[in-house]
Amino acid sequence: MKVCRRETFNAAHRLYNPSFDDAKNDAIFGKCNNLNYHGHNYAILVCLDGPIDPETGYVIDLKILSDILDEEVKEPFDHRNLNLDCPEFENLIPTAENITLVIWNKLRKRLDSKYEIEVTLWETERNSVFYNGK
Amino acid sequence: MKVCRRETFNAAHRLYNPSFDDAKNDAIFGKCNNLNYHGHNYAILVCLDGPIDPETGYVIDLKILSDILDEEVKEPFDHRNLNLDCPEFENLIPTAENITLVIWNKLRKRLDSKYEIEVTLWETERNSVFYNGK
Amino acid sequence: MKVCRRETFNAAHRLYNPSFDDAKNDAIFGKCNNLNYHGHNYAILVCLDGPIDPETGYVIDLKILSDILDEEVKEPFDHRNLNLDCPEFENLIPTAENITLVIWNKLRKRLDSKYEIEVTLWETERNSVFYNGK
Amino acid sequence: MKVCRRETFNAAHRLYNPSFDDAKNDAIFGKCNNLNYHGHNYAILVCLDGPIDPETGYVIDLKILSDILDEEVKEPFDHRNLNLDCPEFENLIPTAENITLVIWNKLRKRLDSKYEIEVTLWETERNSVFYNGK
Amino acid sequence: MKVCRRETFNAAHRLYNPSFDDAKNDAIFGKCNNLNYHGHNYAILVCLDGPIDPETGYVIDLKILSDILDEEVKEPFDHRNLNLDCPEFENLIPTAENITLVIWNKLRKRLDSKYEIEVTLWETERNSVFYNGK
Amino acid sequence: MKVCRRETFNAAHRLYNPSFDDAKNDAIFGKCNNLNYHGHNYAILVCLDGPIDPETGYVIDLKILSDILDEEVKEPFDHRNLNLDCPEFENLIPTAENITLVIWNKLRKRLDSKYEIEVTLWETERNSVFYNGK
Repeated sequence: MKVCRRETFNAAHRLYNPSFDDAKNDAIFGKCNNLNYHGHNYAILVCLDGPIDPETGYVIDLKILSDILDEEVKEPFDHRNLNLDCPEFENLIPTAENITLVIWNKLRKRLDSKYEIEVTLWETERNSVFYNGK
Repeated sequence: MKVCRRETFNAAHRLYNPSFDDAKNDAIFGKCNNLNYHGHNYAILVCLDGPIDPETGYVIDLKILSDILDEEVKEPFDHRNLNLDCPEFENLIPTAENITLVIWNKLRKRLDSKYEIEVTLWETERNSVFYNGK
Repeated sequence: MKVCRRETFNAAHRLYNPSFDDAKNDAIFGKCNNLNYHGHNYAILVCLDGPIDPETGYVIDLKILSDILDEEVKEPFDHRNLNLDCPEFENLIPTAENITLVIWNKLRKRLDSKYEIEVTLWETERNSVFYNGK
Repeated sequence: MKVCRRETFNAAHRLYNPSFDDAKNDAIFGKCNNLNYHGHNYAILVCLDGPIDPETGYVIDLKILSDILDEEVKEPFDHRNLNLDCPEFENLIPTAENITLVIWNKLRKRLDSKYEIEVTLWETERNSVFYNGK
Repeated sequence: MKVCRRETFNAAHRLYNPSFDDAKNDAIFGKCNNLNYHGHNYAILVCLDGPIDPETGYVIDLKILSDILDEEVKEPFDHRNLNLDCPEFENLIPTAENITLVIWNKLRKRLDSKYEIEVTLWETERNSVFYNGK
Repeated sequence: MKVCRRETFNAAHRLYNPSFDDAKNDAIFGKCNNLNYHGHNYAILVCLDGPIDPETGYVIDLKILSDILDEEVKEPFDHRNLNLDCPEFENLIPTAENITLVIWNKLRKRLDSKYEIEVTLWETERNSVFYNGK
């Protein structure tokens, strides 16, 4: 059984690879390569797959998961510039894929290994990413 | 191929374990342990995985699934108090996890075994549960 | 210019008029008259109409409005039984209309008279109420 | 890792099997068998499962996927009558299931075999279909 | 105080003016002029502005409004071709504007004159129309 | 009668008043004052109030409004830093209120005076602004 919690945060970012020249960054990242950054309201859905505790009827108290998401996602990323303010992306392009990967790895360290973890991240209403560690 | 139908119902509930004392119920269930109940608009998505019937182009006529959801979910649970009005939860804490389990088991009895069944239940915009019988 | 803040809460309620007999309550309120209560996730949108402060570019800092909504709406109503736990509805049927009226009156007392106040309340995805004091 | 793109289109259709007589078509397809067609706003979510390219941080540039969806889905189906205007449904009933199957097959031909493809199609807010080629 | 009810229906339509030639119809209505029709899921929000009945706490029982919408909107328009099946549009182009006007006029005849009526119609996620009789 | 078009764009911004010192900017703008910017997915709904053209059944062809929004909103603001890239905010704090005002004024210059214009801007799921020029 999976239980899921949805949270939101918003941040600025810029997509570019410092090993590419400007023309290649423009060709690959287009508008997302804007020198002065742009930004998004990110929505994140985190699902934990595990057994129901018969005493509580919970897989996990979602308040606990929400608190962990505050510490691992909202505190470090909300109202930040992912490229400049967040050491996680010092050497990693902050694409939706990499943001999802970073969040999944942070949660894996915080959550009991009995839970399988799935992370879905929406960068816009139309673009999203899913990762479950496999 | 999976086909899915979304329905909604609303109900009151209270989360507590009668074998716990008040302090432990408060510690575990917090605001959800309110003595006089609180309530939710639940949304449910039921997906059936099975083959397409080449004569109709349907996996199942979703009208049939909708009628079964009326009988098994909306009639017994909508505008009810899950703890007091619904025998399904006489000895089962009506967490989102247990509501999902109860609905999945009811549907498993009503639907042809050729269909795999998935149930997603949203208790709020932020909290949801998924179960597929595995 | 109007600025708006959306919040959510959930609560149990029962619709009945104690001056009606059971048959009339059933006839008028139907399933909403369930003796043991039912419940909803309520969503509320509060809009304040007023001038932009040229120094801040704000009509109001929405954090301030959000804090007032926590005190006047979420603290007293969230995870409660409106009929039993909330003195506001001791002699008032907790229909969506009356909940909206109660909230508007509470906000009118807390907010500077330079703001016109509009309150929209969704009881379900399909049913909503709007009130602006007129 | 999966990345997903959501698009929309709208079209008219009629559900009937020319090998059935009118009574049987009515019994099976009900209102969807209306002789003069009816229509829907379809929403489609296409997810591609594949590895992250370490140079770009992308599984795929979603602009590329969006362009393919324009060519394979929006251009041929948007503002069309699926039964009359679209050769894909000349001998295939345009149920949500078959529309999904047709789109999946079109995308399978256009996309690198390193990507697994998942297609979700919403015909209404309540009815949807999922297919991943298995 | 306003109370509102949301309903949905889906229909096929074609936009053209029989007094224009084909070139002018194409120039003005573009893809919406497709000879074989296309279609939409329409969502409609109807709001009634009136006083709260102190005995019931209702402006109107929304079940009554929902029943009227079934009779005046869903029964005649759902799963229909607006141009061919609906006499309301025999001499009226079924644009979102005109559909809204037709619905408003139908409701005005059915509802007590103490209610002001507002109708919002969504033709797609991005296009909508509002009319209040003024 | 009003017709409305919804569009989206995303941008980075920072809220601060250069005539305030750092402490005052922090006190008033909090997290929104982050030196390195943050960002949002903005959604905008533009409604035009005017008469129906009896020949077309349109208040305005929404394709025309959409094209104007591309030129006046999406081209200048999408994937930009409002503070650094957009001369409109060189001397104006890019709060949701001021962005809405800027857009309304741009549209007023582009649209026939027979239309009244309403602009609603969502900065997040919870925060929005409405302006109609009054």
